[in-house]
Amino acid sequence: MTAETERVDALLAAMTPEEKAGQLGSFWFRPDEPGGDVAPMEGEMTGPQSFEAAIEHGLGHLTRVFGTVPVSVADGVADLRERQTRIQKASRFAIPAIAHEECLTGFTAYGATVYPTPLAWGAAFDPDLVEEVAAAIGRDLRAVGVDQGLAPVLDVVRDYRWGRVEESIGEDPYLVATVATAYVRGLQSTGLVATLKHFAGYSASRSARNHAPVAMGPRELADVLLPPFELAIREGGAGSVMPSYAAVDGAPPTASRTLLTSVLRDEWGFDGTVVSDYWAVPFLRRTHRIAADDDGAGALALAAGVDVELPETVGFAGLAALVRSGAVPEAVLDDAARRVLLQKARLGLLDPDWAPRADDGVDLDSPGNRSLARRLAERSVVLLSNDGTLPLAPGPGRVAVVGTTAVEPRTFLGCYSFPNHVLAKQGGDDLGIAVPTLLDALRVEHAGADVTHAQGAAITGDDRSGFAAAVALAAQADVAIVAVGDLAGLFGRGTSGEGCDAPDLTLPGVQADLVTAVLDTGTPVVLVVVSGRPYALGDLAPRCAAVVQAFFPGEEGGAAIAGVLSGRVDPSGRLPVAVPRTPSSSLPTYRAAPLDQRTDGVSSLDPAPLYPFGHGLSYTTVAYEALTLSASSMPSDGRVDVTVTVRNTGARPAAEIVQLYLTDHVAQTVRPVRELIGYRRVPLAPGDARRVTFTVHADRTSFTGLDLRRVVEPGTFTLAAGRSSEDLPVAAELEVTGRLRVLDGPRVLTTPARVDPAR
Amino acid sequence: MTAETERVDALLAAMTPEEKAGQLGSFWFRPDEPGGDVAPMEGEMTGPQSFEAAIEHGLGHLTRVFGTVPVSVADGVADLRERQTRIQKASRFAIPAIAHEECLTGFTAYGATVYPTPLAWGAAFDPDLVEEVAAAIGRDLRAVGVDQGLAPVLDVVRDYRWGRVEESIGEDPYLVATVATAYVRGLQSTGLVATLKHFAGYSASRSARNHAPVAMGPRELADVLLPPFELAIREGGAGSVMPSYAAVDGAPPTASRTLLTSVLRDEWGFDGTVVSDYWAVPFLRRTHRIAADDDGAGALALAAGVDVELPETVGFAGLAALVRSGAVPEAVLDDAARRVLLQKARLGLLDPDWAPRADDGVDLDSPGNRSLARRLAERSVVLLSNDGTLPLAPGPGRVAVVGTTAVEPRTFLGCYSFPNHVLAKQGGDDLGIAVPTLLDALRVEHAGADVTHAQGAAITGDDRSGFAAAVALAAQADVAIVAVGDLAGLFGRGTSGEGCDAPDLTLPGVQADLVTAVLDTGTPVVLVVVSGRPYALGDLAPRCAAVVQAFFPGEEGGAAIAGVLSGRVDPSGRLPVAVPRTPSSSLPTYRAAPLDQRTDGVSSLDPAPLYPFGHGLSYTTVAYEALTLSASSMPSDGRVDVTVTVRNTGARPAAEIVQLYLTDHVAQTVRPVRELIGYRRVPLAPGDARRVTFTVHADRTSFTGLDLRRVVEPGTFTLAAGRSSEDLPVAAELEVTGRLRVLDGPRVLTTPARVDPAR
Repeated sequence: MTAETERVDALLAAMTPEEKAGQLGSFWFRPDEPGGDVAPMEGEMTGPQSFEAAIEHGLGHLTRVFGTVPVSVADGVADLRERQTRIQKASRFAIPAIAHEECLTGFTAYGATVYPTPLAWGAAFDPDLVEEVAAAIGRDLRAVGVDQGLAPVLDVVRDYRWGRVEESIGEDPYLVATVATAYVRGLQSTGLVATLKHFAGYSASRSARNHAPVAMGPRELADVLLPPFELAIREGGAGSVMPSYAAVDGAPPTASRTLLTSVLRDEWGFDGTVVSDYWAVPFLRRTHRIAADDDGAGALALAAGVDVELPETVGFAGLAALVRSGAVPEAVLDDAARRVLLQKARLGLLDPDWAPRADDGVDLDSPGNRSLARRLAERSVVLLSNDGTLPLAPGPGRVAVVGTTAVEPRTFLGCYSFPNHVLAKQGGDDLGIAVPTLLDALRVEHAGADVTHAQGAAITGDDRSGFAAAVALAAQADVAIVAVGDLAGLFGRGTSGEGCDAPDLTLPGVQADLVTAVLDTGTPVVLVVVSGRPYALGDLAPRCAAVVQAFFPGEEGGAAIAGVLSGRVDPSGRLPVAVPRTPSSSLPTYRAAPLDQRTDGVSSLDPAPLYPFGHGLSYTTVAYEALTLSASSMPSDGRVDVTVTVRNTGARPAAEIVQLYLTDHVAQTVRPVRELIGYRRVPLAPGDARRVTFTVHADRTSFTGLDLRRVVEPGTFTLAAGRSSEDLPVAAELEVTGRLRVLDGPRVLTTPARVDPAR
Repeated sequence: MTAETERVDALLAAMTPEEKAGQLGSFWFRPDEPGGDVAPMEGEMTGPQSFEAAIEHGLGHLTRVFGTVPVSVADGVADLRERQTRIQKASRFAIPAIAHEECLTGFTAYGATVYPTPLAWGAAFDPDLVEEVAAAIGRDLRAVGVDQGLAPVLDVVRDYRWGRVEESIGEDPYLVATVATAYVRGLQSTGLVATLKHFAGYSASRSARNHAPVAMGPRELADVLLPPFELAIREGGAGSVMPSYAAVDGAPPTASRTLLTSVLRDEWGFDGTVVSDYWAVPFLRRTHRIAADDDGAGALALAAGVDVELPETVGFAGLAALVRSGAVPEAVLDDAARRVLLQKARLGLLDPDWAPRADDGVDLDSPGNRSLARRLAERSVVLLSNDGTLPLAPGPGRVAVVGTTAVEPRTFLGCYSFPNHVLAKQGGDDLGIAVPTLLDALRVEHAGADVTHAQGAAITGDDRSGFAAAVALAAQADVAIVAVGDLAGLFGRGTSGEGCDAPDLTLPGVQADLVTAVLDTGTPVVLVVVSGRPYALGDLAPRCAAVVQAFFPGEEGGAAIAGVLSGRVDPSGRLPVAVPRTPSSSLPTYRAAPLDQRTDGVSSLDPAPLYPFGHGLSYTTVAYEALTLSASSMPSDGRVDVTVTVRNTGARPAAEIVQLYLTDHVAQTVRPVRELIGYRRVPLAPGDARRVTFTVHADRTSFTGLDLRRVVEPGTFTLAAGRSSEDLPVAAELEVTGRLRVLDGPRVLTTPARVDPAR
């Protein structure tokens, strides 16, 4: 027993049920009320009316002190300090609350750096850099007294129409797992608690409608949706988990003891806290109808394994009474209170000399932050096609820039940035940070050129009155850069973001028609798509001189994209999702079953993407020269080294993303055509060659079998490496030998790689 | 032990493994080869090259002797007789094969009646009439020597884009179950074996792409997809079941022992045969990749519970050798052979005096058939909206008829009709039957009027050159009847049908624009949609004077629709699917979870349909006067009578479809907002009132609980009755009392209703 557990047990022994329940509750000051609508049903959800009532017996969490209205660092720090003092004074044990904030694309506070959105992290295929970014985010949060961040999002993309695709890292579980775990490591390296969300299945809601139920069986859940959470817990040591809103096959995760206790704690050994998504506890009654009243909803959630209700105490308000009446065993309340108090102990909140950290002079958008934001943005830009027009010729020339995306700073920022999450609904133009536009950046990059702009069309709406001016401008130019895409927002206020689900994958508004109109001029068009999801480009891309895809690249995105266009930056991003050909192709087909990719006439619908998962060009050529195995077979508990030799055969530097895919030839269940099992970002100077050696353990071939146990099944596998999921020049076959192996406990979850010079 | 089982056991004891395996195989003569492509991969699939080789040790099934090319009854009968004779002579026991044919919308043979498609059966809400139709189909099949029919389809519609929606009965499990069971009863009343397909999950393939995998959990499978099969087996006594192509959560049903043995035989007591879908056994290797070769695929299928491989022997070709080598236990082979032989015994095929039935003078399109086809078509036409324009004024007047659907007979026929399934790909205009068009029928119906036609646009393509003539015609008319919709076909040859999956729910081709162009004339428009799936009418219907929906109504569909338009027929069809508002609303929301229907801003997508499940108008008004319960509570194994009083308060006769819906207020899993638990077609003369009494057993409230057991859970329920799933004027609350009841065995599956005069 550690000192922490001793202290917590002593506290628990002294606490009344009301005091224990207090540790499971939360409070949200809403200076933006009335009329605010951060969540759609909050009007009804309001818990205790006064702060005093809420903190009478102690309080678990303080919700988003910085995240609701613009406050200066000094004011926010003072506010948080005052509230913590009041919380400590109000109850017998003087325990402060855990202060939590949103931090997905950076601290979601006024004036804080807005980093690229998670889909851009996926595109960078660079966990190390994401870890650095997360550490920077964590340092800022800790500096102002925040204890827990509600990030990262580990939902594996299952439908491109879903509004929260931008918050997700991609459609491949291994990519999501490794990048999210890096984020967790970075954030928690600063002492902050990271929160894994949304556990699990949320991304597969019917028709991609936010909150809609999920149709999914246990194998898909175990093999696709759960692995990122498992890695982030087992290897990332994540401190907190947030269950998903959406019911899976009729069972809401917030009330799922299977998910929150059997899988999370018993199987994976998770010892942190489970915090509810905002109002997910009362939703058990009000929308899922699995409880008769809010108290019943709270009892269900607690029994399943929820420790803290966010953002305010509704379903947990009656817990103490339920314990006193005997309806809820006190031991269940104790378990949750113990986990919250242990987390507080680890955070130092129970230390006698604790005082809120309060650096009221911290610069939330420091030069260091901006530099990190720039590096990640640069590595996330994906060059989809190029006929040689890129990099743009230096020197004088006429460059026509068209589109709202080129001039509206908010189009670079994700939904979970303060400007789009909060400011957009409160009005005003002051974003709190500088966001150079693409037009600004192009003028810097091409100082000698004549760079002009026409808006052409807004992001939304059907107004085509600006087309003529844009067409006229483009017709007289040497090259037209047409920048289109999304504007993120909340609950229908944007074209991407939470609650902004798309009916199909047509570019928003009349932007596709704008691109077509500019293409019709005959001027070479460089299409730049800056979006939160992939859009169908089948009618546009083949006519363009080049196509560049960026996923909300953050406040330094303009410079990053302009740098790629000019050639100052070597493009090295790869698609973490496919770019579909047609607007109706909204479900990922990479890493899907063979019949998901079938195009042989059995259906009139061709699911083949325009650009597949993993695709991305550079300004040089990289040859895949060889793939060798250290052995042609391995036992079902063994490992093999896979060495891939790559060479930069062009004249410019590159950062190649070497991708390793696995195909199981025959299995007891239907397995993917191929799946990513390893990747490595490899810088290559012209002429350089490198050997990338992946150590593949047999566990990495495992899957959920017919009887729902995870197994390693002997048989033949193909290991293939290359530039994308559909461009795999080198491959070898591997036999897994021995007996079928059942994996009941921990398994090898990653495929480490090392890089050596080639002979 | 019966005489049949004795005879079969004696046969088995005398048979070699080769002879037993012979009974599990099949053979398909393909006079349309080469170049035929009834199934997409058949080129590779061809089994034994010669009939002689195939029948050497006996043969299980003869595949579609009538169903591949046009043959006269006399020729087909002679051909079948000759082949059966050869089969009997070729092997030791002289056992004939089971001759099977397709018969979904009638015998799929040249010159046979084409009845309405199953989605129209659903719209008729009239199981008794469907039973009559099925009996007529069965009589014709039996008359020419056919033993088994590959119908009905019991897939519950889960995505309107799927091409096989037209073959399905609707989106409600209870409607599908009751109508399909009536079809089974009718077909089997003639001695024929019915085949339930596709078992199970096929209709929910990802993106609605035919054959694509299904994401679905066990509760949805048990509560939505399986009930129709259970009813058709337990109460319909269906003799055969066909597993689905599509893998569910990674498990192909053709290799699923859970589905084919545990659920089907052990739980439901099914004692008939399981026949594979065409080439589904080799697909286990070739597309699902769960077997290393075709023999392995056959062994998997046999072990799971497949008894007969269709349409030819590929995977089962090596069974005897596998038994001889010991790889497959002979007992497994025996079980399957016993089931096939028992079925043959019941069919009389093992009788010493058996000879093929062979009425080579039967009229496959008799007046009796046509009359039945007409009655079912009339009852299936759904009047969606009407501003009083319908019924059309009698007497002189100018009626402009626009659209290909009004003049192309094939647009009335489903995919599984001989004209669209077979003839369409072999060319030629001779459908083999008379199909009066809507234009023909309108001219009969309105002999005194000036009825003219302009095509306007084809079903597919983007040719708008016919718009002007159609607009000119409509502009000068008193009323414009615009008839649009689908043309069914196979594998991309149509806009609906097997393999004809839609990207979204926009009317095919430029037909929506044609409707808009005619609407713009200002002439009142009666829109007639004749289709295989619902299409989005949100932009069109509100501007129309009236909208009529028919689902492929068969060869008598023209007269049926024209009769509704003129008022000769009182419209009484109801929607078995919703009609969506927008093209992207492709998933049913009726009978879905609360969050599936949510429109409160949490998502930008509004799933609300334009016309809900169960909707349909008449030319009179029907009042729902009361709903009373025989008791306000019932124990969890009890029953209650629900009496609904309806009155025809208008001036014309009606056939009201009284619909009874159940809502579970609180449950341990997320339950539907409401679900249909009973319905009854009730003829009502003007002024008449009737009391419809439904006997609701507590079992009808049961569902699959958290632990995957079916339970009756005490609590409060609402029973509501009315005209559609969203128009429920009368309701009452019912308490289910007592203890939670687990239903392990058979349960009450239906809600019988009786009709009495009202007081």
